[in-house]
Amino acid sequence: MIARILALVLLAGFALAQNVVHYPTTNANVKYLFATAEPVLHLKSGDILDTNTLDCFGNGLKKPGDTLSMATGDNPLAGPFYVEGAEPGDTLAVKILDLQVNGNMGVGAFAPGFGAINETNYTPMLHAPLPERVWFYPIDHANNTATFKALDSDFSVKIPMHPFFGCIGVAPANGEARSSIVPAEFGGNMDSPEASAGNTVYFPVNVKGGLLYLGDGHAAMGDGEAAGSAIEVPLKARVQLSVIKGRRIEWPEFENEEAIMTMGAYRPLEDAARIALTELVHWIHKDYGLSELDAYELLSKVAKIHLNEMVDPNYVVVASVEKKYLPAKKRQ
Amino acid sequence: MIARILALVLLAGFALAQNVVHYPTTNANVKYLFATAEPVLHLKSGDILDTNTLDCFGNGLKKPGDTLSMATGDNPLAGPFYVEGAEPGDTLAVKILDLQVNGNMGVGAFAPGFGAINETNYTPMLHAPLPERVWFYPIDHANNTATFKALDSDFSVKIPMHPFFGCIGVAPANGEARSSIVPAEFGGNMDSPEASAGNTVYFPVNVKGGLLYLGDGHAAMGDGEAAGSAIEVPLKARVQLSVIKGRRIEWPEFENEEAIMTMGAYRPLEDAARIALTELVHWIHKDYGLSELDAYELLSKVAKIHLNEMVDPNYVVVASVEKKYLPAKKRQ
Amino acid sequence: MIARILALVLLAGFALAQNVVHYPTTNANVKYLFATAEPVLHLKSGDILDTNTLDCFGNGLKKPGDTLSMATGDNPLAGPFYVEGAEPGDTLAVKILDLQVNGNMGVGAFAPGFGAINETNYTPMLHAPLPERVWFYPIDHANNTATFKALDSDFSVKIPMHPFFGCIGVAPANGEARSSIVPAEFGGNMDSPEASAGNTVYFPVNVKGGLLYLGDGHAAMGDGEAAGSAIEVPLKARVQLSVIKGRRIEWPEFENEEAIMTMGAYRPLEDAARIALTELVHWIHKDYGLSELDAYELLSKVAKIHLNEMVDPNYVVVASVEKKYLPAKKRQ
Amino acid sequence: MIARILALVLLAGFALAQNVVHYPTTNANVKYLFATAEPVLHLKSGDILDTNTLDCFGNGLKKPGDTLSMATGDNPLAGPFYVEGAEPGDTLAVKILDLQVNGNMGVGAFAPGFGAINETNYTPMLHAPLPERVWFYPIDHANNTATFKALDSDFSVKIPMHPFFGCIGVAPANGEARSSIVPAEFGGNMDSPEASAGNTVYFPVNVKGGLLYLGDGHAAMGDGEAAGSAIEVPLKARVQLSVIKGRRIEWPEFENEEAIMTMGAYRPLEDAARIALTELVHWIHKDYGLSELDAYELLSKVAKIHLNEMVDPNYVVVASVEKKYLPAKKRQ
Repeated sequence: MIARILALVLLAGFALAQNVVHYPTTNANVKYLFATAEPVLHLKSGDILDTNTLDCFGNGLKKPGDTLSMATGDNPLAGPFYVEGAEPGDTLAVKILDLQVNGNMGVGAFAPGFGAINETNYTPMLHAPLPERVWFYPIDHANNTATFKALDSDFSVKIPMHPFFGCIGVAPANGEARSSIVPAEFGGNMDSPEASAGNTVYFPVNVKGGLLYLGDGHAAMGDGEAAGSAIEVPLKARVQLSVIKGRRIEWPEFENEEAIMTMGAYRPLEDAARIALTELVHWIHKDYGLSELDAYELLSKVAKIHLNEMVDPNYVVVASVEKKYLPAKKRQ
Repeated sequence: MIARILALVLLAGFALAQNVVHYPTTNANVKYLFATAEPVLHLKSGDILDTNTLDCFGNGLKKPGDTLSMATGDNPLAGPFYVEGAEPGDTLAVKILDLQVNGNMGVGAFAPGFGAINETNYTPMLHAPLPERVWFYPIDHANNTATFKALDSDFSVKIPMHPFFGCIGVAPANGEARSSIVPAEFGGNMDSPEASAGNTVYFPVNVKGGLLYLGDGHAAMGDGEAAGSAIEVPLKARVQLSVIKGRRIEWPEFENEEAIMTMGAYRPLEDAARIALTELVHWIHKDYGLSELDAYELLSKVAKIHLNEMVDPNYVVVASVEKKYLPAKKRQ
Repeated sequence: MIARILALVLLAGFALAQNVVHYPTTNANVKYLFATAEPVLHLKSGDILDTNTLDCFGNGLKKPGDTLSMATGDNPLAGPFYVEGAEPGDTLAVKILDLQVNGNMGVGAFAPGFGAINETNYTPMLHAPLPERVWFYPIDHANNTATFKALDSDFSVKIPMHPFFGCIGVAPANGEARSSIVPAEFGGNMDSPEASAGNTVYFPVNVKGGLLYLGDGHAAMGDGEAAGSAIEVPLKARVQLSVIKGRRIEWPEFENEEAIMTMGAYRPLEDAARIALTELVHWIHKDYGLSELDAYELLSKVAKIHLNEMVDPNYVVVASVEKKYLPAKKRQ
Repeated sequence: MIARILALVLLAGFALAQNVVHYPTTNANVKYLFATAEPVLHLKSGDILDTNTLDCFGNGLKKPGDTLSMATGDNPLAGPFYVEGAEPGDTLAVKILDLQVNGNMGVGAFAPGFGAINETNYTPMLHAPLPERVWFYPIDHANNTATFKALDSDFSVKIPMHPFFGCIGVAPANGEARSSIVPAEFGGNMDSPEASAGNTVYFPVNVKGGLLYLGDGHAAMGDGEAAGSAIEVPLKARVQLSVIKGRRIEWPEFENEEAIMTMGAYRPLEDAARIALTELVHWIHKDYGLSELDAYELLSKVAKIHLNEMVDPNYVVVASVEKKYLPAKKRQ
């Protein structure tokens, strides 16, 4: 709620001065790679992008009985969106102004070979895979809930919605092109609930224009995304894109009024956490002036470490600290 | 605050019917192993234990200038406490009724060879170790805060206190004796903020009497305990010990009015998370009646995964689900 | 020696019937990505390719005093080479007929941020990085040795050479483009000494023509490539490329007269080993007819597991079994 | 063969001057913990111990049809053997003079919950466990082979024997007592084929007398011990125990005429490898005089890394370097 009001206030403020650019995403114009590709739209730094995303199945599963074979692809992406002036060595700031679930049905699916506590492509075992299952989650917009309905008993329960982008990222460095199921230095399939309204996400700019991609909307997700999916939904989205010239970051970061947050993506999970923690120590040291060891000690007392997911090709952790625990910022 | 009131209410209720047994812990009677050892006290199931713990340095560091060489040992433990009727195959429930910081100064220390983002005994590297540093945290009981003071600049900030046992556990299975810096199936140095007033901790009983040990009080701790210590403090503690006959668990569990929680301790961190998640699926299936795949899917939408620490010999994760998301419990 | 004679015999046999195609690799035509790109050459299945590769520094470091800043890039690749008839779902067989060190000086380098027992980009720590160092290894072709010369004392020692491709791989699946420092399902920077004369390497064909890339010659390497480099050399190479229609594999494999070998690349290392072992069980089951559990048991008694490297973005393990321990092959 | 001859020569040399002490191990006197316990025998430094060990099942499985429920325990141990003069800070050297398979039948078993590519206690999954299976391996002493017989087809094959102690270790530090299925700093269930005739194993002395334990004989084992067992056999053993005063080591080491070897035991596997590699760099630096970075570089070119097992509670890696690649030793 607070985040929502904040977004509207910010939106109101920016609307006076900024362009709002509309872009409709469809199955015909989605991408499946974070890559250097032909932009679908050019924006100016500060412009607001008003778009939509398909769910991770390309909106292909619609009702009980539908199966994973009906998905049109994994994690179709809107974009890429080119931001003028963004050059390698800069940072792209994506302020998420508003996110709305764009439909009346969410989907959860268990896909054999994918999940935290079953055998997978990268943690293979000799067991027969568990069977595919699909759950459908009716959306109640008025009450902001999605309803879980058990498949093997008659239990159901409402889950509050907190929409976020499962996929948000830019073109990778060094000419790489990565599948939209991968999270890494360029963002990507981070499955970070931190990518929600009220937060700003920062990305390293690796190519001219940055080339932002969006997708894989989640209405709600448990930590770790244990069975491999969230409540998967299409989204309507409003984000503001800005270039921060000359600020170089190595990994995505998040920020809001209350906290600064760093993201690490790798395996094993402790390496993801090490990346996030190290980046956070560096950020505090550079922008808030604590020595590295003082920052390390302080984080040992007040850091939050959020396990976003442990099912994608890399595991994702977000480490954060509330600004109230930090000295005044050294520079703006 | 709510947890505290709850504890007092519970305490009021139990005080009518239950014995309260006092045991003073000192440097002369502490232990440094979770092991099958001579009990210091025998209690009946349902008895309340009123005791205290030393901090992880044996209360040896008292003021700025003191160094780690003044610690009298690592994680001295109160106990072991024998609970009558507890036998292998049972569960020992430890209801934490009250925890108070027992002193006016907390300690944080960076010890070379120990920490999440420096080289350690088990993740050794060729770098020279970072230098030892010690921070002192004045305690303000009236405002329930401890104050961080930077060593390398003049910044200070107050941190709210949430006292918990860093060490709580029982004698291990199979005759093992484990150092008090280790967390494992028997609990131990879990560094779980969940071991705080208002929560019940469950342990597998491996030997007659269960043999509970307590220690390593923390006034506050960040997720992951990144630099290797929390705000280390002595504690005054009040816990109620009960035997649940014939309920067999493999790993520690936590419970309060709102949630059920499972703990996994291992490396890499994903194995700790796998243990906690698998135990949580089994618990939901057994006690709340969802099928395993329904439980798995539900957790993928609403589970919390809390990285307690990634610095001890095993890393610790607590997975939890709020009871409001579960069917009614099948059995009491 | 045996491998060498074998290669010559095979070469003699093939030379009668097969085309030999020459392709000179230079700094002007190398690539830095395993990707779907314009082929530099089209070959027929069965053709022999006679080419050369630059060392991992683009042949930029030539003599004592030269530094890593003189490298023209990391792991420049020869190729891509298109093999007619290769289509997704097929297997590309690369028989390595001959490999020769193409120069008189090998290079070893320690690059900060890269190595098994120092802090790296993906296992970051707060320590200051260790310093860059470069070692030069004079090559003695007559005796097939390279000489290590200590930088900090006057010790030197001769090391026998066993040349192999550090990089050998094909275009990845799903349109991905991966840096030439990455090993994965498509092969790539596997740093596998198994990629040497006398062995055949199999790759999954992901795109039309397969698109083979070669590079990163190593004159000799320790298991794990602990400090991040082997004895880095340019190579002269002769390989035969063949398409196996309708044989689908998921990960690279190796084979010679004595053994079958599977490769896994991931982190943590146990996942790399799990991939290699699982693929080997499947291979034995499918082609040699043992049940999966019999194959698993047999490997528990006679498997070899070779840790190729634990320094690249994924770690690489090769699991193998000697054919003398297997039943007769079911099919050719 | 060479190792065997070497052992006999050494044996001949020592037999003149050294005591040979006999100790018969039976089900009645075995232990199941590496711990500080009452010694079964006191030896002088330099004495030769002539003893035997039971197999990992307590010799309980004897013939086809026998099941794991007939095991009398896991990894029963001979000992502990007290060596006079050994004190904390010293090193205990165990020279393995002779090892013989003591029986006519070896056993291999797949136990659900234990193995490298099936779900286990510490890598739990939601799959149903694979079924228990037991294989019997007839021993041919004359030809030094054990025969694998497939359970699901009629294939059989002879495997050369290379007997070694799966368990060899001393009392742990800090009063810990560890199950005989655990490998760690004190040695233990290392499953290292390096613990074979002709090699010397070094252990840190943690308690007076060192307290050596032996057991878990293996007639042959694949790298990784993938399915969780080797060819399990009772052994007849002859070892010489010596105290090296004032030499302090942190982890077990191996040595023979050709090589020095270090052992690391932990999870994930890369931490086990990091321990072994770091110890090896330190050993080379201290005893052979190369700088740490020169040693690191040299290992990157010539080290061997042997994955002993990835099925026990800790995974075990042995890193080694041949002495021919090292400078002359600085001290004896």
